[in-house]
Amino acid sequence: MEDWLDKKLCELNVTDSMNKPEGFSRLGYTDEEKVAHQRFITIAKELGLSTYQDQAGNQWAKWVVDEHAPTIGLGSHLDTVYNGGGFDGVAGVLTAFGAIKLLKEKQFIPKKNIAIICFASEESARFGVSTIGSKAISGELEKEKIANIKDSEGITIKEAVEQFGVDWETMDSAELPADELEQFLELHIEQGKVLEDQGLDIGIVNGIARPVRLQVKATGMANHTGTTPMNYRKDALVAIAPLINYVENEAIKINERKSGTLVATVSVARVLPNAMNMIPGEIELGIDIRSTNDQLKNEMSELINKYCGKITEDKKIEVTVNKIVDDASVNLDKLMQGKLYKLSESMGLRTICMDSGAGHDVMNMASKWPCGLIFIPSKHGISHHPEEYTKTADLYKGTSLIARYLEQEA
Amino acid sequence: MEDWLDKKLCELNVTDSMNKPEGFSRLGYTDEEKVAHQRFITIAKELGLSTYQDQAGNQWAKWVVDEHAPTIGLGSHLDTVYNGGGFDGVAGVLTAFGAIKLLKEKQFIPKKNIAIICFASEESARFGVSTIGSKAISGELEKEKIANIKDSEGITIKEAVEQFGVDWETMDSAELPADELEQFLELHIEQGKVLEDQGLDIGIVNGIARPVRLQVKATGMANHTGTTPMNYRKDALVAIAPLINYVENEAIKINERKSGTLVATVSVARVLPNAMNMIPGEIELGIDIRSTNDQLKNEMSELINKYCGKITEDKKIEVTVNKIVDDASVNLDKLMQGKLYKLSESMGLRTICMDSGAGHDVMNMASKWPCGLIFIPSKHGISHHPEEYTKTADLYKGTSLIARYLEQEA
Repeated sequence: MEDWLDKKLCELNVTDSMNKPEGFSRLGYTDEEKVAHQRFITIAKELGLSTYQDQAGNQWAKWVVDEHAPTIGLGSHLDTVYNGGGFDGVAGVLTAFGAIKLLKEKQFIPKKNIAIICFASEESARFGVSTIGSKAISGELEKEKIANIKDSEGITIKEAVEQFGVDWETMDSAELPADELEQFLELHIEQGKVLEDQGLDIGIVNGIARPVRLQVKATGMANHTGTTPMNYRKDALVAIAPLINYVENEAIKINERKSGTLVATVSVARVLPNAMNMIPGEIELGIDIRSTNDQLKNEMSELINKYCGKITEDKKIEVTVNKIVDDASVNLDKLMQGKLYKLSESMGLRTICMDSGAGHDVMNMASKWPCGLIFIPSKHGISHHPEEYTKTADLYKGTSLIARYLEQEA
Repeated sequence: MEDWLDKKLCELNVTDSMNKPEGFSRLGYTDEEKVAHQRFITIAKELGLSTYQDQAGNQWAKWVVDEHAPTIGLGSHLDTVYNGGGFDGVAGVLTAFGAIKLLKEKQFIPKKNIAIICFASEESARFGVSTIGSKAISGELEKEKIANIKDSEGITIKEAVEQFGVDWETMDSAELPADELEQFLELHIEQGKVLEDQGLDIGIVNGIARPVRLQVKATGMANHTGTTPMNYRKDALVAIAPLINYVENEAIKINERKSGTLVATVSVARVLPNAMNMIPGEIELGIDIRSTNDQLKNEMSELINKYCGKITEDKKIEVTVNKIVDDASVNLDKLMQGKLYKLSESMGLRTICMDSGAGHDVMNMASKWPCGLIFIPSKHGISHHPEEYTKTADLYKGTSLIARYLEQEA
C-alpha cells in the first residue's frame, strides 16, 4: 500500500520524482492544475469510480452504490502556491483514494455513496482569493465581486475560469443542495510542528481559526537624525515599538487562562521614510490574530485598541487602528470529531485534538454540512515551500483512519 | 541691504522668485550647478572681486589687498538635493558676499586678503558622496575610490566632473597648501529647530557630530502565523523590538549626565518576509548615533552591542551588530568660537553655542585650518525640501556678524 501511495503521490503531482528543488508551481485554474485533474481522473478510473467536472471546475470521483442513499464527501485540492510542496492539498486527495482502495481490497460494500472532490483553486497565490471551488459548492462564492481581479500577468479570474473550461455564467450552479451530501471529511498536512514535536500521528481538528487583521498606523514627525535633539522628537517608531511586545505578552496571558488558544502576531512593519539620517515619521504595522474562539480575537483586538489610545495620549503621536479583516472562525462538527478521535485512538495512533491556524476547503463546506478535518504531520512544520514533506508512513496512517471511518459510517 | 540680499538670493538660485513649489534641483557637477557658479562670478565682479575656478571645479572670488598677507576664507556651496530649498549652502555664499559689500560700503580696507569659496558638489544627492569640492581643497579626496560611482542615469563621477570642465587627472591639485589660508568661516542655515524654538538669532557651532552607524540583524524563524503556537515561535521582531526603546532611553540618560549631547535613532527597519500571515523571521535595523564627543558615540555603540548580546542569550535569536560607518566627529576652533560668540553677543544678537548634527564643507576644511561655523535659523527646522526658509532679517544678522568678524580679524 505504501508503494501505491508513493506512486500515486507522484502521479497527482505530475512528476516522476518528489525530489524537486524548485518545488511545484500549479496555480489555480491553470493548465498545470488541469493536468493534475486529469491524473485525478485516471486514478479514479483505476479504482472503478465515475468522474465528472462540476460547473466550477471541481473534479469529482464517485463510488455510487445506491442513487437514493446519502453521500459522504472526502477530498481536498491539487493546486499549489508558486514553488510550493507536493503534499499541501495532494495528501487529502491521495489518502481519500487510498481509503477507497483499502475498502475495495477488503471487498467492503458501503451502504452510502462516497464522493471524492478535488476542489479547484484552493490557494490564494494566483489571485489573492482562496478556496474558489469549495466556495462555489457551498454557495459562498461572490462571483461578481471577484470577476475582474487579475493575476500577475493581467488575466482576470473570469478569463482564467473560462480558459479552464468553466462557463462563467453558470459557475454558481456548482452550488450543491444540502441533501446531496451527508457529511464531508478532509485530510490535510498540519503545516505546523505540533504533531511532530509531540511525537503524534494524527490531529483531529476542533475548528479553523480564521483571522482578525489590524492595520495600525502611527504618525509622528520625520526629521533629520543629526539636527533634532532627543527632546524635540516625535519618533513614530519609538512610540509604537512597545506594542510589538504587548501583543505577544497579552496573547500568552490569554493562552494561560486556558479558555481557548489564540495566536497574535505583529507580522508586517513599514517605516517611513526608512532612511539612515531621518527620524521615523510614520509606521504601519500589520497584526494577525487567530483563534477558533471569536470572542478571544475580539478581546485581543480591543486590548490593542486601548493600548494604541494610550500611546496617542501619552506620546502625542497619533495612532489609528483599522480592522481590515474580520473573518468568523469555523467550528467543525463535534460528533464527527468525537468519532474520529475514538477511532484513531482505537487504531493505536497517537492522537490529539487541535485547532487549525490555516484555512482549508473544509471551512466552506462546514457552512452547509457536518464536517471533519484530520491533520497528519508536516516535517519541521514547513509548508508552501519545496521542502514541504510528509512521510509515506504518515500518509498511510491517515489513509487507514479514513478507511476505518468509512467502514463505520458508510 | 535686505533688498540686496533678497535680490542676490534669487540670482544665486537662478530664479526670479523664491516661491517655488517644486523647490530647486541643482545637483553637483551638473549644468544647473554651473549656471549658479556663473551667477557667483557675476556678483563677485559687481563687488570688485577677482574670480577663478580651481582644479576641482570650486569657484573662488578674492579680495586681494596684499599678495604676501594671509587669506581668510569664507563660503559654502550652491548645489542642492533633488527638490531642495534655496538656502542650504546658498545662505553661506550670499552672506559672505553681503559681508564684503558692507565692508566696502564702510570703505573698510582689510590688511589680509579675503576669499569666498563656492565649493562644488557638497550634497550627496547625486552620487551618494558628499562635499567633493571641499575634500579636494583640504586633500581629503580619495579620487580613485569614487571615480566609477554612477548617478541614477549611469554617469560616473569621473564623467560628470569632466563634463563640468574639470580635468580628472589633475583634480587632486586643487589641494591647497596650509599656508594659503589662515582660517575658514562658513555660515549655514541650522536645518534644525533649536534656534527658532528658543527665539535665538545665531548659533556658534562647537563641532560637527558625524555619525557612527550600526546595522543590527536579528535572525529568528519565519513561520505561519496561524499554525505556530505562541510557545513555538522564534519571532525576530518580538526579540529585537525592545532595542528601539532602549536606544532612545540610553541616549536620554547620556544627555542627562551633561558630559556632552548625543542623539541616537533607530531610523531604518526592514522586516522579512513582511507578510500578514508570516511570523517575522529576519529583522534589519539601522541605527544612527551622533555626538561631537566620539567617546559618547562609542559608549552608546557598546551599550547596543551588549544589549544585543543579551537578546541572543535570552531569546535564542541570533543578533549581530555591524558598525557600517564610524566617522570621527570634527571639533571646530575654540578660539574662533570664543571670538564669534563674544562679537555676536556684543551686537545684541541672541546667541548660543551648539553642535551641528549635519555635515558641512567646513568639516573638511577643519582638518587643515582653524575653522568656524555660524548657524542662522531655519523655519520649522525644515531643510532639503521646497519649504526650506530663512528670513531675510536672519540672513542680514549673519551677514553683519561675518562683516564685524572680518573687521576685527582682517
